[in-house]
Amino acid sequence: MNASPITATLLVSCSDQKGLVARLTDFVFRNNGNILHSDEHIDEEAGLFLMRIEWDLKDFAFAREQIRGAFEPLASELSLDWELRFSDEDRRGAIFVSKFDHCLYDLLFRHRAGELRADFSLVVSNHPDLRGLVEYFDIDYQVFPVTPESKPAQEAAILAELERRRIEFIVLARYMQILSPDFVAHYPRRIINIHHSFLPAFAGPKPYHQAHRRGVKLVGATSHYVTAELDAGPIIAQDVVRVSHRDSVEDLIRKGRDLEKVVLAQAVRLHLENRVLVYGNKTVIFD
Amino acid sequence: MNASPITATLLVSCSDQKGLVARLTDFVFRNNGNILHSDEHIDEEAGLFLMRIEWDLKDFAFAREQIRGAFEPLASELSLDWELRFSDEDRRGAIFVSKFDHCLYDLLFRHRAGELRADFSLVVSNHPDLRGLVEYFDIDYQVFPVTPESKPAQEAAILAELERRRIEFIVLARYMQILSPDFVAHYPRRIINIHHSFLPAFAGPKPYHQAHRRGVKLVGATSHYVTAELDAGPIIAQDVVRVSHRDSVEDLIRKGRDLEKVVLAQAVRLHLENRVLVYGNKTVIFD
Amino acid sequence: MNASPITATLLVSCSDQKGLVARLTDFVFRNNGNILHSDEHIDEEAGLFLMRIEWDLKDFAFAREQIRGAFEPLASELSLDWELRFSDEDRRGAIFVSKFDHCLYDLLFRHRAGELRADFSLVVSNHPDLRGLVEYFDIDYQVFPVTPESKPAQEAAILAELERRRIEFIVLARYMQILSPDFVAHYPRRIINIHHSFLPAFAGPKPYHQAHRRGVKLVGATSHYVTAELDAGPIIAQDVVRVSHRDSVEDLIRKGRDLEKVVLAQAVRLHLENRVLVYGNKTVIFD
Amino acid sequence: MNASPITATLLVSCSDQKGLVARLTDFVFRNNGNILHSDEHIDEEAGLFLMRIEWDLKDFAFAREQIRGAFEPLASELSLDWELRFSDEDRRGAIFVSKFDHCLYDLLFRHRAGELRADFSLVVSNHPDLRGLVEYFDIDYQVFPVTPESKPAQEAAILAELERRRIEFIVLARYMQILSPDFVAHYPRRIINIHHSFLPAFAGPKPYHQAHRRGVKLVGATSHYVTAELDAGPIIAQDVVRVSHRDSVEDLIRKGRDLEKVVLAQAVRLHLENRVLVYGNKTVIFD
Repeated sequence: MNASPITATLLVSCSDQKGLVARLTDFVFRNNGNILHSDEHIDEEAGLFLMRIEWDLKDFAFAREQIRGAFEPLASELSLDWELRFSDEDRRGAIFVSKFDHCLYDLLFRHRAGELRADFSLVVSNHPDLRGLVEYFDIDYQVFPVTPESKPAQEAAILAELERRRIEFIVLARYMQILSPDFVAHYPRRIINIHHSFLPAFAGPKPYHQAHRRGVKLVGATSHYVTAELDAGPIIAQDVVRVSHRDSVEDLIRKGRDLEKVVLAQAVRLHLENRVLVYGNKTVIFD
Repeated sequence: MNASPITATLLVSCSDQKGLVARLTDFVFRNNGNILHSDEHIDEEAGLFLMRIEWDLKDFAFAREQIRGAFEPLASELSLDWELRFSDEDRRGAIFVSKFDHCLYDLLFRHRAGELRADFSLVVSNHPDLRGLVEYFDIDYQVFPVTPESKPAQEAAILAELERRRIEFIVLARYMQILSPDFVAHYPRRIINIHHSFLPAFAGPKPYHQAHRRGVKLVGATSHYVTAELDAGPIIAQDVVRVSHRDSVEDLIRKGRDLEKVVLAQAVRLHLENRVLVYGNKTVIFD
Repeated sequence: MNASPITATLLVSCSDQKGLVARLTDFVFRNNGNILHSDEHIDEEAGLFLMRIEWDLKDFAFAREQIRGAFEPLASELSLDWELRFSDEDRRGAIFVSKFDHCLYDLLFRHRAGELRADFSLVVSNHPDLRGLVEYFDIDYQVFPVTPESKPAQEAAILAELERRRIEFIVLARYMQILSPDFVAHYPRRIINIHHSFLPAFAGPKPYHQAHRRGVKLVGATSHYVTAELDAGPIIAQDVVRVSHRDSVEDLIRKGRDLEKVVLAQAVRLHLENRVLVYGNKTVIFD
Repeated sequence: MNASPITATLLVSCSDQKGLVARLTDFVFRNNGNILHSDEHIDEEAGLFLMRIEWDLKDFAFAREQIRGAFEPLASELSLDWELRFSDEDRRGAIFVSKFDHCLYDLLFRHRAGELRADFSLVVSNHPDLRGLVEYFDIDYQVFPVTPESKPAQEAAILAELERRRIEFIVLARYMQILSPDFVAHYPRRIINIHHSFLPAFAGPKPYHQAHRRGVKLVGATSHYVTAELDAGPIIAQDVVRVSHRDSVEDLIRKGRDLEKVVLAQAVRLHLENRVLVYGNKTVIFD
């Protein structure tokens, strides 16, 4: 097998019942697919079954445009929520930034290094500051300044631009504006934010200052899907780093930058590899 | 130099001013003491200077009972808050428990292994369950059942027992009763608690259930000094462990036990080695 | 579903071929079993397929003593290496120790806390020192002193005792004797050791001294299956802790004790829950 | 006190003797300097005393060019090895790379973000590949292709260029050539390398492949000063990240990149802030 076979990935959730693993893997097997990874999770409290199956498309009985149709009858019978993705389809994404550049540059370099299966064609910002390197990388940089008054109009303008480009997902790489619930509703479970604390500790503004004031011995970063409620969406990835009384707020900010980059990139990668299933306000990470 | 010289440790805090490090270390040098460790911290916001000096008592100009008197004039001149400790004086401690035994046993074994410079003569509990092994270790186990009605009387009885034994510090090793502010006031900065979350996240009851519900990807433990406000005292030590959607609440509890043991033991050891200085609601850890 | 259903766990390895996941899960489904967890791994280099399936025995078509027979035809057809275990069968284990007690006590307490699905009836030692607490826990403690001359005879005596008790697996909880290849051959992949370094760094004796001399900034612990070659068996679990120039060898030893306990206990738990599959000199951990 | 006072930092090592802390801090105090940080370490085995003192230059009795002369008599009397640095003097550095770009770009961005007190005017490479972004950042990029035959001449050419620019320290940011002992002797304790393993495990070439073959559960990165012996110099910083059987060699390489960036940047920062003291083959890190 070569290094990168082209694969299909099926993400499934439904109420738990007997035989789901067997019947879903049988669909692949019966149609001559070779399963590379399969993983499932049962949430007993919620009575929910969640599964991810990835198989090699080589020799599969159906062409990729036929797979959905072929799977539909089984999906109906089992009342599945499901999603099908192909490994060679880069998803169209936009990155939103303000003035902090570390997460933006980190994503751009990872993208260039082939770590992220995405097609980033647009950076949206409320400030002009970060245009330079973005354009050096041949990515469009558009500025939408936001004031309390202009916010509804600007969000509408951003949405129009995103739709024009058929953007599928958004990364908030330290974007310092709060998106309206209406905006968020256009991209359910498809806006990934990085919050610079170990949520639910220190939600809201200036978490490093809050952490310094409280005297914690670790600071964290949390990447989550954006929902209507601020900093309360389903968590995708988290990590922490050790700090001490010797660290000023500036040191926390510096140490935190490294965390934010790694945690956000991890969440984006998991999202793009179809390894995240949201249920309720939580996530299953098939890693 | 042999493995364990007998040392004196001076903990100092005062408002910042020039020359403090030089003048304090000069006190030791002038009197023929050999400094083994010195460490200081300046909190610029608070304008506060904090220092720890540890020196070998061998050949020191003063006998240990004279040192306080010899240091007093300098301390007055510089308006110091200060504390002097000797490494061979085990401090008298009591451990409070309820029904969870892991932190208790962990402390008893570390104590037996010589990790903790303490003399634990008493375990206080509101339940009789854990008597067995404590008495196997020749430590007294006293039960003070607590109800809302009996609490004031029982706290008074516990305090009397602690005073009778001249207990200097208390470790709450998963003691499931909230101590009254009045009780706490008898042991300021000398009651060490373990809370089974990464504070300030998930303060209050059942933090592992809260963490499971929120879907965090790490769970933590926090050891802190007890103050009148629940779970809000100065933090001494914290750590986290990675969890996933595969972990049930029971798994979080199991993983958390290991964290709780290590974090509490670390805090107790730091306290006993005079490495913790509290200022405001924060700590300096001289490690 | 109640908290602890009785489950069967099937561990399988074979050369990779299409349809394995489907056919194996179908065996469970067809016989009315409810799969709780399934996980597989393909080692592409080795062309190897490895899988773990755990299902609820409630309502399963076969009584547990019939399952092996019912599965045999499929196993033959697919040329499987396989193993079947039941969650309510505690495995008979022996713990080997010398003079360090921390890993021993840690295992005994975890066992008592219900963390380990094992029946520990015997502690073997080359020294009498740790008899006390072991017997307090109602576990037999047998001393087999070992000299270079007596080693073959003592190993034979130990083996006889293990066989008499039908011991299935052995935990070396800081046992300071090297077992002969002949002894090891009696318990292939069933002797779990803890080595107090991050293998392959610092194999052999006195790893903390080696680490201190090299000036590393982290020290580790490694739990592995014992093979004929010293410290070279398949790794089950590893972890590290941060150290600095301030840490003496004694500090490394103290910090290392906490690591050793956690890493060894984790490996034993994974082994007992049938989450470890060895292939070549490596392990797959189904966690 | 404002955010960034201009400071002097004194790094000292000598054989241990009484009064060193007092006499050294007294030099600063007597001359009206305000000590911001002081930290010392005694290596008892080696009988060595090591200290770092940082003080605010504001109001100090001596102008910076006079401090060395003023300190010399005390240094002679105490037979000190010592070094004096000023916080506003950026050190001239060169970065060496081959074809992997992640460490290079990471350093360039940190430098731009003000994290590193250095003046990087030159990137040296044995390949032309990474010229683009380096020149975008207005840094010279010079290619010195190396073959076994041309190596002595090319090293001489590189040395000449470094001397012309008065380069003080070198960062090997995944430079895939082994520097000759003669080259290394020109920059003792001033060449910082990143090795992509947890040294001393997996020294030499292709450490991720070695790690994958051994089946370790963590992979690491180590930053160290380069000495004549390959991968054996004094360690400045190390860290690890968790891996599993699911990770291919490519995954280890990807995860390792994040480690390498953070560990190398940490070592460079410690070096530039004069927080590293080498003694024997080890380091003291004054952090």
